[in-house]
Amino acid sequence: MSLDPSIAARLKRNDAGLFTAVTQERSTGDVLMVAWMDDEALARTLETRKGTYYSRSRQQYWVKGETSGHMQYVHEVRLDCDGDTVLLIVEQVGAACHTGTHTCFDADVLLRPES
Amino acid sequence: MSLDPSIAARLKRNDAGLFTAVTQERSTGDVLMVAWMDDEALARTLETRKGTYYSRSRQQYWVKGETSGHMQYVHEVRLDCDGDTVLLIVEQVGAACHTGTHTCFDADVLLRPES
Repeated sequence: MSLDPSIAARLKRNDAGLFTAVTQERSTGDVLMVAWMDDEALARTLETRKGTYYSRSRQQYWVKGETSGHMQYVHEVRLDCDGDTVLLIVEQVGAACHTGTHTCFDADVLLRPES
Repeated sequence: MSLDPSIAARLKRNDAGLFTAVTQERSTGDVLMVAWMDDEALARTLETRKGTYYSRSRQQYWVKGETSGHMQYVHEVRLDCDGDTVLLIVEQVGAACHTGTHTCFDADVLLRPES
């Protein structure tokens, strides 16, 4: 699958050819996870509407939920003002985090609201 | 300002000593922007409750809104499951994006919801 050249021209990638993907749940607004994409991962995500990322450690593509069943149906994708981050608005099946929590930001609170 | 050693021990930084910060608006749930932090930027953010980032291009710290007046009051900070991304929940004064839009993701839609 190849990425629309007009989109590819607007992307700014790091030295490894990657950019950041932030994934947000449509129904709750929760930020679910942050991962990496390259052009191919973005092309697959746009084409299939399944959240598809690039794993640096495994050096391969992964479709979120492919093994866990916790798929993401992608409603919207937006590119930020400097072209180095995409925002995915998704419907998340089950837990987004591989630890079993709803989001990857549930477990470790560094600063709490002032009471 | 120095970062709490117990927090510093949980962070995973890239080769440049940086990690990703995602900033979300408390009242709307909107993802406003994505930027970089290092330990010092995070320490300043936790201490002052003003969103403070590290600029790779200018190689300096910047307090969001210091010149524009579009400050961020930080309500919460959370660290993700693999320790390489923080999520800031903020109250945003004015536009979050330097282009004048509410968020950095307003202008460029790559994929729209199916009708």
